[in-house]
Amino acid sequence: MLMDSKTLILALFLLFLFVSTSSARKIRKPCKSLVFYFHDIIYNGKNSHNATSAIVGAPAWSNKTILAGQSHFGDLVVFDDPITLDNNLHSTPVGRAQGFYIYDKKEIFTAWLGFSFVFNSTEHKGSINFAGADPLMNKTRDISVIGGTGDFFMARGIATLMTDSFEGEVYFRLRTDIKLYECW
Amino acid sequence: MLMDSKTLILALFLLFLFVSTSSARKIRKPCKSLVFYFHDIIYNGKNSHNATSAIVGAPAWSNKTILAGQSHFGDLVVFDDPITLDNNLHSTPVGRAQGFYIYDKKEIFTAWLGFSFVFNSTEHKGSINFAGADPLMNKTRDISVIGGTGDFFMARGIATLMTDSFEGEVYFRLRTDIKLYECW
Amino acid sequence: MLMDSKTLILALFLLFLFVSTSSARKIRKPCKSLVFYFHDIIYNGKNSHNATSAIVGAPAWSNKTILAGQSHFGDLVVFDDPITLDNNLHSTPVGRAQGFYIYDKKEIFTAWLGFSFVFNSTEHKGSINFAGADPLMNKTRDISVIGGTGDFFMARGIATLMTDSFEGEVYFRLRTDIKLYECW
Repeated sequence: MLMDSKTLILALFLLFLFVSTSSARKIRKPCKSLVFYFHDIIYNGKNSHNATSAIVGAPAWSNKTILAGQSHFGDLVVFDDPITLDNNLHSTPVGRAQGFYIYDKKEIFTAWLGFSFVFNSTEHKGSINFAGADPLMNKTRDISVIGGTGDFFMARGIATLMTDSFEGEVYFRLRTDIKLYECW
Repeated sequence: MLMDSKTLILALFLLFLFVSTSSARKIRKPCKSLVFYFHDIIYNGKNSHNATSAIVGAPAWSNKTILAGQSHFGDLVVFDDPITLDNNLHSTPVGRAQGFYIYDKKEIFTAWLGFSFVFNSTEHKGSINFAGADPLMNKTRDISVIGGTGDFFMARGIATLMTDSFEGEVYFRLRTDIKLYECW
Repeated sequence: MLMDSKTLILALFLLFLFVSTSSARKIRKPCKSLVFYFHDIIYNGKNSHNATSAIVGAPAWSNKTILAGQSHFGDLVVFDDPITLDNNLHSTPVGRAQGFYIYDKKEIFTAWLGFSFVFNSTEHKGSINFAGADPLMNKTRDISVIGGTGDFFMARGIATLMTDSFEGEVYFRLRTDIKLYECW
């Protein structure tokens, strides 16, 4: 059976439509999913041996040993926190979470985060870079994966943060569900 | 009329060329455009009731109540500013602009910004994350939309900042024209 | 010779396969490569005339004139550094590197960077925005290009940093190899 030109043109048109639509529509299915925990022990003047973070900026009405009143508004904290695969602070770290957070609201606890997960193990080599707002009283909150290097070359995606533990004003543990939607 | 194989091959070739070119070339037409205003009232030692931002880092030669000399070089400011749809500070906020800016040049006013627009209304839910240099004496200046969550899932684009008002060293208002070029 | 429908369908199928595969696979070949140097002279209490950066945040146990002990952990530095095409501090700058770094580890020197290259010359107009972890004792380390404006509209990529010179705790020079993998 031979195809006439009308049918052919129709076939080509449909093909074109399909291809152009599928390249325009981006699919919300992660190309990579990862779950990690990281552990933050903030310096409080007495724990310099095991603190993993410290206040390095504070508003005029506060100091750098105790988190400020008014929901810690204005406190800038630098951290180098161990990353683990489970929720145990004493598990062997698989990497380090490094960067900063700034408490940025007086009425409730919210922070702005800029940090990286840095890996150098047989499992993962490279880094994942994050930025975004963390309304930390919410059960889950999403920030952006803004880039990556090494195994995570050019990655983009979403990281969902969950406060997995919170002990006074010294220790907290965040569960981080990373879903990458751009992988190279 | 039947199509012969030469014509067919030519047709396929042209189609292929068109499709491959159009997927390689990225089109500079926004998939979403948004305009917002945000309002910054900096703490000056006397306005703690209505200040929306505060100096939390300063160079050795300055303090955290008054913006530093030399174009405020070295002042790090944390903010939680109301976002409005028009240029009226007293309009109902539609979200919050949260993050920081650092004045980073001695000779003229320039800053580096890392912040988010956080929305939780019927209109918009989610966040838009920004980073970039703000040469704030220029009439317009462009920073990057580096990611988004919720309604702005995986967004990328450009935000054009314009100083819409500036009152002494206490209040300024920025108009923000957001153009997203990647939408999911 | 005429083509029958079987051959036609096969041809269409192969074309479709090729097009859909080539749009899914992202090619790790830079669309733009650039090399720059930037120069950082940190304020140390005596060099205010030629310092290009200053400590503006520090941990409780340090101050803002001398970099802190324990690998400078907690020091936040703001900079406005000249960018040159070669490794000579006195070459005519082609732009400014503006932003901040925070030393974020007690045991070794590492930092977290958020900054922009700002260009306004006949050669380049616009900005490139960077973020990421800098384990600065490594010979090379990769950070992310998270966005760009002007000539670098919507850019994404990788910047490889190399410490090209390091003089005491006052001057360092970074070579920056920028490879963009998304150009518009």
